Amino acid sequence: MNAIVFQDGRVRFERGYPVPVPGKEEVLVRVSLAGICATDLEIVKGYMGFEGVLGHEFVGEVQAPEGSNLIGRRVVGEINIGCGDCDFCLSGLMRHCPGRSVLGISGSNGAFAEYLTLPVSNLHVIPDSIADEEAVFVEPLAAAFEIAEQVDIEASNSILVLGDGRLGLLAAQVLATCSDDLLVIGRHRRNLAILKARGIQTAVDPGSVTAGALAAGKKFDIVIDCTGTAAGLEAAMSLVNPRGKIVLKTTVAAHRRLDFNRLVIDEITLIGSRCGPFPPAIEALAEKKIDVKPMIDAVYPLEEGEQALRQAGKKGALKILLKI
Amino acid sequence: MNAIVFQDGRVRFERGYPVPVPGKEEVLVRVSLAGICATDLEIVKGYMGFEGVLGHEFVGEVQAPEGSNLIGRRVVGEINIGCGDCDFCLSGLMRHCPGRSVLGISGSNGAFAEYLTLPVSNLHVIPDSIADEEAVFVEPLAAAFEIAEQVDIEASNSILVLGDGRLGLLAAQVLATCSDDLLVIGRHRRNLAILKARGIQTAVDPGSVTAGALAAGKKFDIVIDCTGTAAGLEAAMSLVNPRGKIVLKTTVAAHRRLDFNRLVIDEITLIGSRCGPFPPAIEALAEKKIDVKPMIDAVYPLEEGEQALRQAGKKGALKILLKI
Repeated sequence: MNAIVFQDGRVRFERGYPVPVPGKEEVLVRVSLAGICATDLEIVKGYMGFEGVLGHEFVGEVQAPEGSNLIGRRVVGEINIGCGDCDFCLSGLMRHCPGRSVLGISGSNGAFAEYLTLPVSNLHVIPDSIADEEAVFVEPLAAAFEIAEQVDIEASNSILVLGDGRLGLLAAQVLATCSDDLLVIGRHRRNLAILKARGIQTAVDPGSVTAGALAAGKKFDIVIDCTGTAAGLEAAMSLVNPRGKIVLKTTVAAHRRLDFNRLVIDEITLIGSRCGPFPPAIEALAEKKIDVKPMIDAVYPLEEGEQALRQAGKKGALKILLKI
Repeated sequence: MNAIVFQDGRVRFERGYPVPVPGKEEVLVRVSLAGICATDLEIVKGYMGFEGVLGHEFVGEVQAPEGSNLIGRRVVGEINIGCGDCDFCLSGLMRHCPGRSVLGISGSNGAFAEYLTLPVSNLHVIPDSIADEEAVFVEPLAAAFEIAEQVDIEASNSILVLGDGRLGLLAAQVLATCSDDLLVIGRHRRNLAILKARGIQTAVDPGSVTAGALAAGKKFDIVIDCTGTAAGLEAAMSLVNPRGKIVLKTTVAAHRRLDFNRLVIDEITLIGSRCGPFPPAIEALAEKKIDVKPMIDAVYPLEEGEQALRQAGKKGALKILLKI
């Protein structure tokens, strides 16, 4: 099959890569559309030490094994493949299984290929009302919904989203469904315009995120760091209310320091946040509460995967898809 | 009046220090017993840039103004003096008022003196069943109860307390009331013995806190850092379960780094925790659920305050009181 493979520090398009064989309680999925995420770009820089087929955001159709009642169904899939036996797996939190592999990220070939395999329990069937171009956003949208899962948000809470990249735009749309007091600060007028069009308040960062938010003249009960930069957390600390909460969404290679005394004195809570629940993401897309289509910058054929990755790595780039 | 004053980088016992005059809605308290806390020791090293009468843990008797219905009552007092007008003060969280002063810590003379003043609303009357030597622990015990206030603890949660100093011993006793699965790791057999006598599981740290906990062979749902050292947080990170919570109790002058990627990937929550609610602390002492008396190392007269501070600063020292 055709696949985009990362090996020996190089990304390349390969023909004749072996089609994976589904194991017990797994299915074979013919991928139709895949999305490029910041994590893919980090992996190409060496993050996680991964080698193999890249990619973890996808929509596709189940094709095997024979007799599966999912044959022919359009599906998306959770990317963490748990052992099935530990306390985390048994409680439905296989995304925290200590023995997990992760699709296209750790120990498991990914979605930038004609075929992938996943356990049946990882799959979610996509209703007809959701187009492929929307369904491919379910995985990152679930990560945005994880914020609402982890933080008890009240309508009166003031919320600040730092960053207007892919995750920032999804987080902002999710949070707009649960707060009337939301501000998004970013650096890309084009990206912020997508939120503005949906009635979400935005501000352009005049050089540094901190300066931008301070110019807005207030502090916030909840600050979401989607900047993807080492400076984001420090900015969040300076903009959160005493007793406020910071949700940290981005992993960066650089080490970061923090004023932990401030954290103690102001009793701030810092919450690490990663993958999230698929059902609310699918529901929100089906009910058209979240609009992801304006976030698609381009669709490349799989053969041009290398070029697509370069495009996705440009500053302010939104979603680049691979048609397979 | 007699007072222990910190000024120009020096601690000294002063006679003839002016007796404070209670303002509107304030009372004058004759201090009978005061406790030395780690924060006092930090202030003497320059923390907070404070100058004036030291001390914030006390029990005393209300003596003025005439006509107050508190005259002659034995009281303890919350140490944060809010503006009374902001959202924090109006919601009862004056300890987070941005314009607050703090008794013996910031902008307000403290309790190592014959007299202090506090707003009436800061005071809590102490029932006769609580001795002075117990009542003087209400303020630090409230800080330990703050943990249970901030973290929703279930009986099935495994809890690790790192540190067997003054705060560690109080935190452990509070947490023992809400979990059956509690371990305390410390460096001082004498201190751990106080907990052991109450049926709390303890382990002696064989050189480093991390090694000690790892030797115990498990990870924990909730880790409380009461080490008072920069290394405590790192140890807590290595010992907390994915999706677990770390409560950070100690402020240290040194800057600290943290593996924030780990925080995101494992979705760990880091909670800064400072002062707490007085009522549950008073109730626990009245009901003899917490035993603070074995934690008293020595009682010094106020005149020997300097020596008492030196004693409190020794490794593994427990509570040093000042009889006034």
